[in-house]
Amino acid sequence: MDVLAVLNLGEFAQIFSKMGMFPVFDLAYYIVSILYLKYEPGSVEVSRRSPVASWLCAMLYCFGSYILADVMLGGCPIDYFQHNSHILLASAVWYLIFYCPLNLFYKCVAFLPVKLVLVALKEVVRTRKIAAGVHHAHHAYHHGFFIMIIMGYVKGSGVALMSNFEQLLRGIWRPDTNEILNMSFPTKASLYGAILFTLQEAQWLPVAKSTLILAFTLFMATSKVVMTARHSHGSPFALIESWVCYVLFGSALAGSEEDHHHPPAVPATPVKTKEELGEGARRRKVKKAE
Amino acid sequence: MDVLAVLNLGEFAQIFSKMGMFPVFDLAYYIVSILYLKYEPGSVEVSRRSPVASWLCAMLYCFGSYILADVMLGGCPIDYFQHNSHILLASAVWYLIFYCPLNLFYKCVAFLPVKLVLVALKEVVRTRKIAAGVHHAHHAYHHGFFIMIIMGYVKGSGVALMSNFEQLLRGIWRPDTNEILNMSFPTKASLYGAILFTLQEAQWLPVAKSTLILAFTLFMATSKVVMTARHSHGSPFALIESWVCYVLFGSALAGSEEDHHHPPAVPATPVKTKEELGEGARRRKVKKAE
Amino acid sequence: MDVLAVLNLGEFAQIFSKMGMFPVFDLAYYIVSILYLKYEPGSVEVSRRSPVASWLCAMLYCFGSYILADVMLGGCPIDYFQHNSHILLASAVWYLIFYCPLNLFYKCVAFLPVKLVLVALKEVVRTRKIAAGVHHAHHAYHHGFFIMIIMGYVKGSGVALMSNFEQLLRGIWRPDTNEILNMSFPTKASLYGAILFTLQEAQWLPVAKSTLILAFTLFMATSKVVMTARHSHGSPFALIESWVCYVLFGSALAGSEEDHHHPPAVPATPVKTKEELGEGARRRKVKKAE
Repeated sequence: MDVLAVLNLGEFAQIFSKMGMFPVFDLAYYIVSILYLKYEPGSVEVSRRSPVASWLCAMLYCFGSYILADVMLGGCPIDYFQHNSHILLASAVWYLIFYCPLNLFYKCVAFLPVKLVLVALKEVVRTRKIAAGVHHAHHAYHHGFFIMIIMGYVKGSGVALMSNFEQLLRGIWRPDTNEILNMSFPTKASLYGAILFTLQEAQWLPVAKSTLILAFTLFMATSKVVMTARHSHGSPFALIESWVCYVLFGSALAGSEEDHHHPPAVPATPVKTKEELGEGARRRKVKKAE
Repeated sequence: MDVLAVLNLGEFAQIFSKMGMFPVFDLAYYIVSILYLKYEPGSVEVSRRSPVASWLCAMLYCFGSYILADVMLGGCPIDYFQHNSHILLASAVWYLIFYCPLNLFYKCVAFLPVKLVLVALKEVVRTRKIAAGVHHAHHAYHHGFFIMIIMGYVKGSGVALMSNFEQLLRGIWRPDTNEILNMSFPTKASLYGAILFTLQEAQWLPVAKSTLILAFTLFMATSKVVMTARHSHGSPFALIESWVCYVLFGSALAGSEEDHHHPPAVPATPVKTKEELGEGARRRKVKKAE
Repeated sequence: MDVLAVLNLGEFAQIFSKMGMFPVFDLAYYIVSILYLKYEPGSVEVSRRSPVASWLCAMLYCFGSYILADVMLGGCPIDYFQHNSHILLASAVWYLIFYCPLNLFYKCVAFLPVKLVLVALKEVVRTRKIAAGVHHAHHAYHHGFFIMIIMGYVKGSGVALMSNFEQLLRGIWRPDTNEILNMSFPTKASLYGAILFTLQEAQWLPVAKSTLILAFTLFMATSKVVMTARHSHGSPFALIESWVCYVLFGSALAGSEEDHHHPPAVPATPVKTKEELGEGARRRKVKKAE
């Protein structure tokens, strides 16, 4: 990390990794998450039919990673709901996005330049969650490397890993697709990030944690901003993944693009995950739903 | 609460709120719960094919609220199964309702006058569970108002909140319906009750807890007895709910009656929940199943 | 147990019941479990499309009983993943069975004589798990006989009890079948074993625990080896079960063979569970899948 030393970035990384997330970054996280919920087909109708179900889904989108992490460590799944201010903030965002007159709030935050900033801020929170998840697991299980990876993965992916059950809450059931079978970019990145942070925690990666947080945040924010701006859903990992998969598993790739030439036994519904749909398609859907 | 003071009801409420539930009230709770299980289409066949699955469903109907509450607080989900006498009593009720020669026990408890008494007794238990749930959550999280509401809600609603998974145990899967999307009267009342008891616990409601328990029990018992007697499934909350929903969410109502004019994206199957089906329809179903 | 005393088997039982399971017996357990995973339709495709999903399924097959038992007692579900050597061994087996060049490893372990030995070793582990589950529950709940039975059952049955959710991970959803509705031989035997060990733990069965472990292991190993060798899926319990069910529940039997003359409300798909399919059918399926 000599380069960083030369640029005197070490201190900046240190400050950056200690920065509080509440309320600015968390607010961005809630807005982007509930925006993705509104993009989901049928979610607007659910918000009309049953505000309770809609609110619960919104809470899962915002706090799914905490719930899952608490479940994984055998804690109280609704433990995070003791933070009344976080819940109230997320509830306010949910209310504004779904019920604001003239759909004003939604139009503001879905405006591309605003959204790009929010998306970047969300990735800051995601990275911090992965690091915290790995650290927490390391505290509980000093040599439980698999547990550390799982906890980081779960904290980074959040609601995506339980999307089947979140959909069930809205009356939708799509068993042929789940986030583990068709990993989207953020889920994959969370997995790789969790592995990196675990290596760092186990001191097999000669990098300071604050530096790793800074670097990973920059990578995630850049990737997501570029992908959102270009309405793309290609993964930056595609090339290296296809090579590793070919060497290790003898298959072209676990990704969706290279999947066409496999005779799929499991019906390979190319259901794009919520974070991979182009903006255009999304807007049309949401407009139609209203 | 001057009226109560004048009528000298305060002391009565105190005594009522300390009254033991086991075995009389609990017995009524088990009988009514397993009666509703027998009303479920297919449950009689399951009791013939797999007594183990049928017994497990019966236990979920009787102890679902304890299981869910333990899950929510990160405890041992089968903790309540240490009370052997409760389990044995519920198992005896299950055996008598499903396998009694000539269906004698079922005919006795499903006889309307008997059933009305049992339904009233069941609501006594439900109210106590809501109060206990809120109190327990308050003990664990002093300012966790959301947790208190969730715990009271879960304790009052019981198996209804996990009906999808209870049905799965019997080989049935109806993703388009769940208790959160289409709340039945007891579930809604549990939610409102949980909010009331939370307000009381937070001392924002100037009422003694025992008085609230008495009043809520009276309301619940009266409502359920009237609804059962009239085979009705209208909700006493319909009017105020439609007004609140109109003001807050701009929609007519989250209820089913006013739902027709929405173009439903989620297939709005008007599946009546078990507690809302008229008696006539129920009896016919059960008879046919036998 | 005079016979055992005469044969001087008591000491042998003692030694047998203290014998370490890692690595030989555990290795056999992992191999047979992941073999059954490969027999599942679609699992080979999943291993090509998403190695992560395939690995997770393999872990559920190997450690499902620990995960479920931890969930049941309110512990950390991924607690067992702290044993890195066990996870690595199971992962190596998974890799060799699914990705070994020329399918060499699979062919070796699926070769009938080898497989019979492995199956017998697996049953040794299963019996030990049941005994450990009951013992653990007895430690936590001294008089919780139902909890002891449930824990032994869960430890013995493992992934079978959550097969619906394991299938969901692979994109398959078969709600009309679950292990409780259609219990396979190992699941039934685990239930009966859990009851026996609970009776022993409660000292209602005048047998030393080590003797019971030895006897139950012999019964399980013999039954499974014979059933695997003869490609049979009849249950040795069928006769006594049909008699008990007739007396207690007035039905012929909860088993599948005698089930035909019931008009099934729940679509009685005679889906053979993985452990009951004849070898021939399995091999054909797996070959086709490749």
